[in-house]
Amino acid sequence: MTERQGETTAAPFTLPVRVYYEDTDAGGVVYYANYLKYFERARTEWLRALGYSQQALIDQRGLLFAVRSVQLEYLAPARLDDLLSVELRIERVKRASLDFAQSIRRNDDDTPLCTAQVKVACLEAERFRPAVIPDDIKESFRGEH
Amino acid sequence: MTERQGETTAAPFTLPVRVYYEDTDAGGVVYYANYLKYFERARTEWLRALGYSQQALIDQRGLLFAVRSVQLEYLAPARLDDLLSVELRIERVKRASLDFAQSIRRNDDDTPLCTAQVKVACLEAERFRPAVIPDDIKESFRGEH
Amino acid sequence: MTERQGETTAAPFTLPVRVYYEDTDAGGVVYYANYLKYFERARTEWLRALGYSQQALIDQRGLLFAVRSVQLEYLAPARLDDLLSVELRIERVKRASLDFAQSIRRNDDDTPLCTAQVKVACLEAERFRPAVIPDDIKESFRGEH
Amino acid sequence: MTERQGETTAAPFTLPVRVYYEDTDAGGVVYYANYLKYFERARTEWLRALGYSQQALIDQRGLLFAVRSVQLEYLAPARLDDLLSVELRIERVKRASLDFAQSIRRNDDDTPLCTAQVKVACLEAERFRPAVIPDDIKESFRGEH
Repeated sequence: MTERQGETTAAPFTLPVRVYYEDTDAGGVVYYANYLKYFERARTEWLRALGYSQQALIDQRGLLFAVRSVQLEYLAPARLDDLLSVELRIERVKRASLDFAQSIRRNDDDTPLCTAQVKVACLEAERFRPAVIPDDIKESFRGEH
Repeated sequence: MTERQGETTAAPFTLPVRVYYEDTDAGGVVYYANYLKYFERARTEWLRALGYSQQALIDQRGLLFAVRSVQLEYLAPARLDDLLSVELRIERVKRASLDFAQSIRRNDDDTPLCTAQVKVACLEAERFRPAVIPDDIKESFRGEH
Repeated sequence: MTERQGETTAAPFTLPVRVYYEDTDAGGVVYYANYLKYFERARTEWLRALGYSQQALIDQRGLLFAVRSVQLEYLAPARLDDLLSVELRIERVKRASLDFAQSIRRNDDDTPLCTAQVKVACLEAERFRPAVIPDDIKESFRGEH
Repeated sequence: MTERQGETTAAPFTLPVRVYYEDTDAGGVVYYANYLKYFERARTEWLRALGYSQQALIDQRGLLFAVRSVQLEYLAPARLDDLLSVELRIERVKRASLDFAQSIRRNDDDTPLCTAQVKVACLEAERFRPAVIPDDIKESFRGEH
C-alpha cells in the first residue's frame, strides 16, 4: 500500500549474451550501436517471459512497443568471446509508455560495460500512433500477477 | 538477331561504397556477411537507376525481388576507410528470376576483394510466392529501352 | 576575443544517407540501433573532410575517438528508400573529449526523425586510455584554420 | 578403415538461435546477410565446444579461421520470434582449410530455411597468410580425441 503511482517492484531480469565477430569492430571491441541490440534482446525475452511475443502482440492486438528515447553510457568495452549479462529493470509504467533501466556487465570480472535508460512507447502497429497499454499487459509489467 | 534467349548485353553498373567502423570486425577487416549488404545496395541502386524503387514495387505492383542463392568468393579483405567499387552485371533474365554477377574491388589499388553470383526471384510481396517479372521491367533489365 | 573557452563556431556538416533493406526491420522502419551507424558515418566523413581518416589516426598517432555517451530521441521513423540528411555540429571541444549535436531528417518532407547528443573521448588506440586531443586536431575542430 | 583421406565422421553440431528485430528487414523476414551471422555463431560455438576460443587462437597461436567461399541457398524465410536450429557438419579437413556443410531450420515445423557450404582457411592472424592447421586442432576437428 506504500507503492507510489506508476512505480514497480518487479525484480530485475537478466539475459546472457555472447559476443561474436558480428558484434565487434576494427577497434577490437563491440561496436557502439550493437549494445542497443543486446538491450533489445533482453526486453524481448523479458516480454516473452511474461507471456508476450512481439509478433503475437502485432498480430493479435495490433500493438508494438517502440523506443522513444535512450540515454547510453559506455563505461568499458566488451570484446570478442566475452559472455555478458544484460539486465533490465522497469522503472515506471505509464499510460502509454514504459521506462527501463538497463545495464550490461561482463561475467568474468563483473565489470559494468554499458548502461541505458530506455523509454518505450506503446503504438498502434499499423499507423505508429500512441496507444494505451492494455490493462492485462500493464499488470503483468508491474509483476502483480 | 544473334542474341540468345534470356541473355543480356547491358553494361555493368557500379556503386561506390565507403567502409565504416560498422562494417568491420575485430579481425580488422570487413565482416564477411557485410559484403552481402554492399552487393544489395548495388542491386537496389541499379534498380533505382532503371526507375524502380523497391518500396514502390511493393506498394504499386505487390512485387519484391528476393535472393534465392548466392555463391561468394572472398579474395582479399577490405579495411576501414577503404573506398570500394561494387559492380553488377546481369547475366540472365528469366521468366521469374534474374542472375547477377557481382564483384567488389578496392579503388586505391584495384584489388578484387569479393565476387558473387546472385540469383534473385520475383515474388508476390504478400505471400512470398513466385511471380512472373512484368514485361516492362524485364525489358528495362535487358537494356532494350 | 568574445569566444568563450571550449566553444566552437564551426558550421554544421551534413552527410546524405540512403535507407537500404539492411537498415530496416520487420516493423517496416529503420531499426533503432542503426541510426547510431548513420550518426557515426557523419562524424567519420566530417573528420575526413578536416583531413583525418580514422585508420590514419590510429596508425600515425596511436589515437582513436570513442563514444562515451549518447542521448537519442526518436521522433519519427525512417523507411526503406528514404533519402536522409545526417547533420553534425560541434558543441564543445574539451581537453580530451568532444560534444556533438547530431540530427537526422528526411529530405522529401524535411521531417526531423532522430536527434543525438554524443560525447566522444580521445583515447590511446592501444590501451583505450584517455588521451589529450593534439593541438592541431583541436584547432581544426574549432574551424580556426 | 574405409575412411578416405581428409574425411570426417564427426556428428553434427547444433546451435539454437532466436530471431530478434535486429535480424529482420522491412520484408518482414530475416535479412539475407544475417543468416551468415547465424552460421558463424554455430562455427564459433562448435570451436568453443572443442576447447578453442577464437580470441585465444589469435592470442596464443597467432591463428584465425577466415571464410574463403560460401554457397548459400535460401529455401524459406525465417521470421521475427522464430526459434531456429543452426546445424554444422564438417565435410573435409585439409592441410590449411576446412569445409563445412551448414543448415538452418525452424524448430516449430522443422522447415529447412537455408543451407550453406562454407570453406574456411586457417590464416596467420597478423598477415592474413595461409597457415597449416596445427595437428592437435586438426585431430579434434576429426573427432578423434
